Amino acid sequence: MKCIKCGEKAVIHLRQHNTLALCKEDFLAWVPEQTQRFIEKYRMFGRDDRALVAVSGGKDSLSLWDILWRLGYSTTGLYIGLGIDGGIGYSDTSLKMCEKFAAERGLQLQVVDAPAEYGGTIPELSESTHRGRKKPCAVCGLVKRHIMNRAAREGGYDVLVTGHNLDDEASILMANTLNWISGYLLRQWPVLEAGPGGLVRKAKPLCRLYERDMAAYALLRGIEYVYEECPYSHGSKSLFYKEMLNRLEAERPGAKMSFYVAFLEAKEQGLFASSTDPALERLHNCPSCGQPTTAPGGCAFCRMLAKAV
Amino acid sequence: MKCIKCGEKAVIHLRQHNTLALCKEDFLAWVPEQTQRFIEKYRMFGRDDRALVAVSGGKDSLSLWDILWRLGYSTTGLYIGLGIDGGIGYSDTSLKMCEKFAAERGLQLQVVDAPAEYGGTIPELSESTHRGRKKPCAVCGLVKRHIMNRAAREGGYDVLVTGHNLDDEASILMANTLNWISGYLLRQWPVLEAGPGGLVRKAKPLCRLYERDMAAYALLRGIEYVYEECPYSHGSKSLFYKEMLNRLEAERPGAKMSFYVAFLEAKEQGLFASSTDPALERLHNCPSCGQPTTAPGGCAFCRMLAKAV
Repeated sequence: MKCIKCGEKAVIHLRQHNTLALCKEDFLAWVPEQTQRFIEKYRMFGRDDRALVAVSGGKDSLSLWDILWRLGYSTTGLYIGLGIDGGIGYSDTSLKMCEKFAAERGLQLQVVDAPAEYGGTIPELSESTHRGRKKPCAVCGLVKRHIMNRAAREGGYDVLVTGHNLDDEASILMANTLNWISGYLLRQWPVLEAGPGGLVRKAKPLCRLYERDMAAYALLRGIEYVYEECPYSHGSKSLFYKEMLNRLEAERPGAKMSFYVAFLEAKEQGLFASSTDPALERLHNCPSCGQPTTAPGGCAFCRMLAKAV
Repeated sequence: MKCIKCGEKAVIHLRQHNTLALCKEDFLAWVPEQTQRFIEKYRMFGRDDRALVAVSGGKDSLSLWDILWRLGYSTTGLYIGLGIDGGIGYSDTSLKMCEKFAAERGLQLQVVDAPAEYGGTIPELSESTHRGRKKPCAVCGLVKRHIMNRAAREGGYDVLVTGHNLDDEASILMANTLNWISGYLLRQWPVLEAGPGGLVRKAKPLCRLYERDMAAYALLRGIEYVYEECPYSHGSKSLFYKEMLNRLEAERPGAKMSFYVAFLEAKEQGLFASSTDPALERLHNCPSCGQPTTAPGGCAFCRMLAKAV
C-alpha cells in the first residue's frame, strides 16, 4: 500500500477513513494537522491562550503535548503524582517519562503530589473511604479533577487540555448512552466552557483521533511513554465499553468514529432540548476548598477527604 | 429456586428483575399482567378499541395475540403472505400456524397475499429492484408497512398492534443510537399516534418483555409457532445488534432492559428537543397508492413497485 500523499511506501492505513494510507513523514504531519483542525472547529483555544496540558506519561497526553508544542501553542505540563505502585512503580516511572519529555523540549512541567498534599496515596484514600469495596478509580477521578482545575485556576491558565482520544470519548458516550444519563449526554463535547465557581475551560484536542493512531504517532515520533496501563484499569467500565466498541469496529471499520461524530452532529443540529447540562448553571465555589461544585453542601472531593480522615 | 409468589418450584428466573423467579402458572399470569400494565402506561389502546394484530406465525406475535385475547381485547389477526420459501416452505408453514392458532380460539384472521397483489414474491421483488445487490429485508419491510397500514385503515381498526419485544426495540434503539439518527430517535416509542395521510396508530405491547421470556411464554402456554427464523435473517443488521446487546446482557444482567427503559424515561423527562419526529408533520397521502408518506413525490413503496416492473 502506498502513501496517498507522496506515493512512497505507507506505514499506516487508517481504515476509518477508507483509502487513507500514509508514509511515516506524512502521517507525522497529518496528526498535528488534524489536531489543529479540531482545535479550530470546536473553538478550543487560540494562539494567545496559555494552556495547561494534563500529562500522565502515557502515549496520548505526551503525544498531545508534543503536537501542541510543534503547532506553536504556549503550553505547560501538569503531572499529578497519585502514589500508584502496583508492583511496577507505576507513578514513579510515569513522572520520569514526563520530566524527560519536558526537559528534551525545554518545556515547563508542574508537579502536584497528591499523597503529600492530602495525606494518602490514591489506593490509601480509596481504601479509607470505601473500605476496599470499590476500585480506586472513582477516588482517582475525583482527586485529578480537583487538582487539575485548581492548578489551572491558580496558574491563571486560559484552558486545561487533556489527552482524551476518540476511543475514550466513544467509550464515555457509550456508557452515557447505555444508561441515557441526560446531564452527561448534554455536557459531552470536545470543549467545556468555563463556568461559575471558577470552572476552567477544558478541551480535548485529540477527541477525533483513534487510540491506535495515537500509539502509532508516539512510536513513529520516538516519544518514550509508559506502556503499562494503570494496574487498577483491569476490569474497569471504560475498558469494558472500549472492548465493546472495538468488536463493533472490527466488524465495521469506522463505526467507532461515526458513533461519536454522528453524536456531535446530531447535537449541533439540535437533537437535544439543551445545548449543555442545565445543572452547570448551579456551579458555585465549594465553601471548603473553593473549587467548583454543583452540590449544595461541600463538594464531592471534600466529602471524600472528610470520610478518609 | 422457588416461585416468589407461591413458593412452588420456579420454572423461570427473570434475571433482569433480580430475584424474580416464577412457577409455570404464575409466569403465565405475570406476562399478561405486564402486557396490560404497559398497554395502560403508554396509553396504547382501550377496551373499546378494535385492534388488528400483525402475526407472522412466530412466538412473539402469536403470544401477543394469545395475551390480548385472554385480556379480553377485541382483536383480528393479519397475516401477510410474503412468498418466502428458503427450502423450508417458510411462508406456507407460517400461514398454517396462524390459521391453526386462530381456529383454536375462534378468532378471525385476515390474510393478504403480497405475491398475488403485487405480481411477485418478496425475493422476486427485491431481485428486480436491487438486482441481487441487497438482501430482501428492505423490500420486505416496505411491503409489510404498506400492507399493515392499508389493512388497518380499510378495516376501520383503531390500532395496529405488532409483536416487537424488548430485544427488538433495544436492537432498533442501538442501530438508531450508533448512528444518532435524530428522526428515528425522536419517533421511537411504545406507541406511535395516528397521523396525517391516514397513518394508523401503532402499538407494541411487548416492548418491555424479553425475547427469551416470550419464547418461554409460548412454550409454557403450548402455542405452536414457527421455530425457524426467516431464511434471510442470517447476517442481518438487527441480528448483529441483538448479539451485541446479548453479550452486554451476559456480562450485566438487565443491561438490555435498562438501555431501553432509561431511553424512554430520558425522553419523558425532556432530553430531546421534540417529543416526536417533526418530519411526521409532513405526512400526506401518496398520490398513487393513498398510503401515508413524507416523500414529496410518490411513496417509497410505489417507487419500489415502479422499479420492479
